[in-house]
Amino acid sequence: MYSTRILALLRKAGAEIGDSLRIASGSETYEGILMPRAEGGADSAVLKLKSGYNVGVPIGADVKIEVVKKAGKKQTTPATPSHAKKGALSVLGCGGTIASKVEYVTGAVFPSLTEEELLSSVPELKGMGDMSTRVLFNLLSEDMSPEHWKIIAREVEKDAKEGAGGIVLTHGTDTMHYTSAALSFMLRNLPVPVVLVGSQRSSDRGSSDNVVNLVCAASAAKGDVAEVSVCMHANTSDEICWLHRGTRVRKMHTSRRDAFRSINSQPLAKIHYKTKKVEMLTDNYNRRSSGAHLEVDDKLNPNVALVHTYPGIKPGVLSALAKHDGIVIAGTGLGHVPTNAMNDKHAQSLLPEIKNLVESGIPVVIAPQTIYGRVNLNVYTAGRLLKEAGVIGDGADWLPEVALVKLMWVLGHTKKMEKVREMMMENMAGELSARSPTEPDYFE
Amino acid sequence: MYSTRILALLRKAGAEIGDSLRIASGSETYEGILMPRAEGGADSAVLKLKSGYNVGVPIGADVKIEVVKKAGKKQTTPATPSHAKKGALSVLGCGGTIASKVEYVTGAVFPSLTEEELLSSVPELKGMGDMSTRVLFNLLSEDMSPEHWKIIAREVEKDAKEGAGGIVLTHGTDTMHYTSAALSFMLRNLPVPVVLVGSQRSSDRGSSDNVVNLVCAASAAKGDVAEVSVCMHANTSDEICWLHRGTRVRKMHTSRRDAFRSINSQPLAKIHYKTKKVEMLTDNYNRRSSGAHLEVDDKLNPNVALVHTYPGIKPGVLSALAKHDGIVIAGTGLGHVPTNAMNDKHAQSLLPEIKNLVESGIPVVIAPQTIYGRVNLNVYTAGRLLKEAGVIGDGADWLPEVALVKLMWVLGHTKKMEKVREMMMENMAGELSARSPTEPDYFE
Repeated sequence: MYSTRILALLRKAGAEIGDSLRIASGSETYEGILMPRAEGGADSAVLKLKSGYNVGVPIGADVKIEVVKKAGKKQTTPATPSHAKKGALSVLGCGGTIASKVEYVTGAVFPSLTEEELLSSVPELKGMGDMSTRVLFNLLSEDMSPEHWKIIAREVEKDAKEGAGGIVLTHGTDTMHYTSAALSFMLRNLPVPVVLVGSQRSSDRGSSDNVVNLVCAASAAKGDVAEVSVCMHANTSDEICWLHRGTRVRKMHTSRRDAFRSINSQPLAKIHYKTKKVEMLTDNYNRRSSGAHLEVDDKLNPNVALVHTYPGIKPGVLSALAKHDGIVIAGTGLGHVPTNAMNDKHAQSLLPEIKNLVESGIPVVIAPQTIYGRVNLNVYTAGRLLKEAGVIGDGADWLPEVALVKLMWVLGHTKKMEKVREMMMENMAGELSARSPTEPDYFE
Repeated sequence: MYSTRILALLRKAGAEIGDSLRIASGSETYEGILMPRAEGGADSAVLKLKSGYNVGVPIGADVKIEVVKKAGKKQTTPATPSHAKKGALSVLGCGGTIASKVEYVTGAVFPSLTEEELLSSVPELKGMGDMSTRVLFNLLSEDMSPEHWKIIAREVEKDAKEGAGGIVLTHGTDTMHYTSAALSFMLRNLPVPVVLVGSQRSSDRGSSDNVVNLVCAASAAKGDVAEVSVCMHANTSDEICWLHRGTRVRKMHTSRRDAFRSINSQPLAKIHYKTKKVEMLTDNYNRRSSGAHLEVDDKLNPNVALVHTYPGIKPGVLSALAKHDGIVIAGTGLGHVPTNAMNDKHAQSLLPEIKNLVESGIPVVIAPQTIYGRVNLNVYTAGRLLKEAGVIGDGADWLPEVALVKLMWVLGHTKKMEKVREMMMENMAGELSARSPTEPDYFE
């Protein structure tokens, strides 16, 4: 991103990202396309020259900025039409840090990326067969919304129906696990793999993980797991990625390259960067099948809130969410909220509010804020009282984020409380398991 | 807990927990004190007989329940006066699963537990020197409130000033890490260790962790770490506990005995159950010192909200929290929220609301919802925009829960935005570190 000072100067000159500019700085004059900066700090503007190279133009006090040509409509054009090649890998750009390297190649904000351009920026992908590529949108993933999930689902559908051999989605890491969960519920009966991949460090840093992650994701997309999955660094080496099930993965670190972890589940596979080998870690997955008839069910109601309880939470916090059509509560321990079961003078209870919500037809779903483990409302008083109040989720080993996305999807199909309950508690995409081993190893 | 059916029968008879009852069930008649059930399921009521034994009395359709003697005021009596012994261990009961074994010994809801009673229920504590014991209150920890934190702080103060050699707090596990953080901010310059300990499985289960945890906590309280800490199972064996710093620990699993993890930090020590040895893992801790003059600063403002962002979050969610005096946002990735930096038609922005909150004097603090890692608002546009909006937390490697508790404590001392910012960003109790190693090993 540009500094406030540079942004002000650009704005003054009427210059926007994608415009062709002429900048006179000191004794030099540069002409090129103004590029976005995903990462910032430097006191310069980035222009893509005609040669294809990017230069950082120092923006001093005496700089002169002139717009040579506006970028035109191309900036806000949605995805180019699908042109998936039969049996080939389809790479769809959904933004994020991993996109930066690729996008700088073309100099457009929403480039129509060709196979040649992708291969020239990530030559490690050569020899992996035919590819088709396009960019759906360019977003940092904290800005991703349920509408974007639907767009992705429909674009995946197009490519799958045109015979793509596997689909890679490049995506920002912040909310990649929300998107992977949403796609898992929306894409049923996938014939080929759909692999989300991101990068924790941008390509201009030596420690970038984008090449390893992309190559491993492409390997997975050519593999046998016809599910929605996430492929990211497995550890601090540059040799192995995990393939995580889309409903069982969570970003667990702000910055580490191995930030993504499978939760309450093993990863599906270990992917070896150098050999491109996909080493399966389980038998429990959907196989690639040319006979599978993909169904896209993208009906969802995004009007769902997620709230974590904590000591001192005011009962009003829940009532303030009553305009939502559903609420997920990330409770403490086994899924508890304050109920004041011991009738203590300092304790509060959220029970009356929860009962009001449920009685007014708003489903309340419980998930564990511990992240790992399983909701169990049968052990302690608080749990029993919650069950009596009609909450949904007893026995569920889902992530709060997955419960949120699933409730959006279920509420897109029904508002009937008993049907919501039934659909929520049915395992649809690997997000629920019948029971954990007593001491599972996957609590890393 | 009792089933709804049994509760209704008890209520009909006017019987409450702690009352002396006579129950005629089938051909038998039982007389004893009605005990609470922390764990439930069975179709019986638990009476403590005169012999000291508990029996489960079957509650059939033909049962007759008679109140022989009401429990009287004792039920709501606060803690008995401090009677810490010079140099001895002080064990203070704050409720939770671990308390169940101890409390069933005496038959009172808020028992004035003697050393003899504690030792008879946990004989493994014998030989660990003198102890004094009392119960502050009996709560499952999801009902713990900031008022309870203050009560605990003052009771710890009494015992420390009377010369206790170390203090063990038995506590429910759901919110133990919130309490340990709060006590870390409230108790400055501790002369002796203050160790919180809980149990993930109640004492009537073979796999209970209460004895190992209590013995290790007592060992830590006799040790050299004069800080607020949490002592819980380190792994699935019954041999080792971790001692975690009070501001660096989080419950990370709903049910496992090794649910507590140090986050962004190593544990302080490894404690060996059999040998009672405290093996320090760091040099960076406050030592026991008879010269330390404990200061208790329990001023806090509990009117603080914690909110996690997610795709689809409505801007109204933040405005609805405007009645709070401070807000902690657990953002995605490096601490982001939706800002619609790319001006996408489907994306939302929380920025206008955040600016409004800050401008109206409500501090907004950022923490990472990834749990692990450090907030960094200098890498991407969303971060820069948040900084410009005046949020607090850039560079902080705190847990969302710790940021919440710290903001409550800071707002108990000042409402001036710049002073709040300064106090929040100052490391007060080990909750902030200057920087992480590039690839820290403690991301387990």
